[in-house]
Amino acid sequence: MKSAIYTQAGQVGLTEIDRPQLQAADDAIIRIVRTCVCGSDLWSYRNPDIEEGHGNSGHEAIGIVEEVGDAITTVKAGDFVVAPFTHGCGQCDACRAGFDGSCDRHQGGDNFSGGVQAEYIRFQHADWSLIKIPGQPSDYTEGMLKSLLTLADVMPTGYHAARVADVKPGDRVVVIGDGAVGQCAVIAAKMRGASQIVLMSRHEDRQKMALESGATAVVAERGEEGIAKVREIVGGNGADVALECVGTEAAIDQALGVLHNGGRVGFVGVPHYDKTPLGSTFAQNTIVGGGPASVTTYVKDELLKAVLDGAINPGRVFTNTYKLSDVNQAYKDMDDRKSIKSMLVVD
Amino acid sequence: MKSAIYTQAGQVGLTEIDRPQLQAADDAIIRIVRTCVCGSDLWSYRNPDIEEGHGNSGHEAIGIVEEVGDAITTVKAGDFVVAPFTHGCGQCDACRAGFDGSCDRHQGGDNFSGGVQAEYIRFQHADWSLIKIPGQPSDYTEGMLKSLLTLADVMPTGYHAARVADVKPGDRVVVIGDGAVGQCAVIAAKMRGASQIVLMSRHEDRQKMALESGATAVVAERGEEGIAKVREIVGGNGADVALECVGTEAAIDQALGVLHNGGRVGFVGVPHYDKTPLGSTFAQNTIVGGGPASVTTYVKDELLKAVLDGAINPGRVFTNTYKLSDVNQAYKDMDDRKSIKSMLVVD
Repeated sequence: MKSAIYTQAGQVGLTEIDRPQLQAADDAIIRIVRTCVCGSDLWSYRNPDIEEGHGNSGHEAIGIVEEVGDAITTVKAGDFVVAPFTHGCGQCDACRAGFDGSCDRHQGGDNFSGGVQAEYIRFQHADWSLIKIPGQPSDYTEGMLKSLLTLADVMPTGYHAARVADVKPGDRVVVIGDGAVGQCAVIAAKMRGASQIVLMSRHEDRQKMALESGATAVVAERGEEGIAKVREIVGGNGADVALECVGTEAAIDQALGVLHNGGRVGFVGVPHYDKTPLGSTFAQNTIVGGGPASVTTYVKDELLKAVLDGAINPGRVFTNTYKLSDVNQAYKDMDDRKSIKSMLVVD
Repeated sequence: MKSAIYTQAGQVGLTEIDRPQLQAADDAIIRIVRTCVCGSDLWSYRNPDIEEGHGNSGHEAIGIVEEVGDAITTVKAGDFVVAPFTHGCGQCDACRAGFDGSCDRHQGGDNFSGGVQAEYIRFQHADWSLIKIPGQPSDYTEGMLKSLLTLADVMPTGYHAARVADVKPGDRVVVIGDGAVGQCAVIAAKMRGASQIVLMSRHEDRQKMALESGATAVVAERGEEGIAKVREIVGGNGADVALECVGTEAAIDQALGVLHNGGRVGFVGVPHYDKTPLGSTFAQNTIVGGGPASVTTYVKDELLKAVLDGAINPGRVFTNTYKLSDVNQAYKDMDDRKSIKSMLVVD
């Protein structure tokens, strides 16, 4: 079967490898229908020291279950499923508290046989974590397939920011980051009833998309200037909630800077910093939460229905679509910011 | 009138100063009935560089309103009141969100004319923030006066840890710190329905007090050994909540160490550290909140009633009582750990 590999810095290609086989009782083999490129995949793509032939780091897919191990009771061969980047067990304290993205049993990234930018994957710890989609791919429009694909990562991740920050009806919310996750955080804030949603963004196409999804204002300025502009827009003593969807210290500082005292931060940008000044949140009484999204919980509880009902349309983040054989162009266009998020058609 | 001053490192005395006068429309002059020594006062007491005659840093009192400025509508002369260490306005975004300890308008510690270890104080921003107690001091037993005095700081502070960490019925809670605030955090966790409350403490008298207030177990070990012991007691994948009532990096590490993924930390120990590894809470999806307590909100909503009804008895933290003229002994006994918290009788 075909699978994407990093061939050198700035280049991705396809290679022929063996189709994965069941190895554990809770494995599932999935035939990929749609997959995509994540912002985090670009770190490998750009890495000048990448080992030639390194497997792809893709981790978002929808597909058809081909085979399941003996321990799998929640899906069967032939089912159309969301294959999340998380692998919750549904039974540990973390999963029961609604944090299956940090399952106490299935930690770390070693839960795929290889990246999902491929024709098939072995999905580990598949019982409970995979989410069945009604019907088959051919029952859906291409637009709906895009939205279903966002359920593997970016839509639940944006939702997680809003969920851990406890966005409530009437809240004035600031979203930091205008990529796919930031766009989904705007959608999530709207779902939860925010009265104002201010997106910090410098790109016109992304501003436009967010405004169409529920953002009420955009602020192009950054740093102190951006904070002042946001405060002017939200009024009062500052925003109630900031959703940090970037992962840099500057973005965290921006999140902390726009809030009134007793505000809340949800951060889902994978931290590219060692430490943040948590001590400095003491005087402001800020509540801070964040981490890998509870994909299975949110998709089962709410997001799959919202997508199927057409209540939300997160698939719009896939501005560009490619065949798996054009994977290099899919990466390149995202790296060049010509594509917000690149979808790959596999079947 | 008499007021306590720091005379040299390790020594507190009384001095005669002018009785404070109204200066602003939202001032109140309060005659102190009971006050006390806070753990944070010991930092000034021990400071080898303390300026001779430096005013005391006391900030917890109950007393009688003597005079009020023209803007005060919520209390009048003759009222018996809790004088909190906080000075919320009741109207800003922070206060309305229930975080009057970090009022957006009245920040910082410059809200008393001087420390409250004195016969009178000028209490600034007194409208809304002072809390009226029914009747007069003579209507109450000495034990009840002690519990009422805890409402100025330590009981709401312990409650704040439990509140920001959203302690819910059935939660398994770990309290780090066995001082007055830690003891009050145990009481708060019990009020909110925790099923297990494990106190980390090495002092037998404090262990005993906590066990009588609702703690279900104590752990004397610290560091990794303490974490392992707590995990053994709470079972599952770790505790649901940790309440950090110390303020050191070691205490924060302990709090983060005892939780299952997706757990919650409430921290109310004033941070004696610059940075904590917030980035490291990402993989564990820990939600972290903390800061100065919402004294007025909690006392008005719940704590005054709980004390008056006898549902809680936080006054037990005052193990020793002194006359104001014995203020030096009151500090010394706390510094020597002979007293958990020292009360001063002023009238």
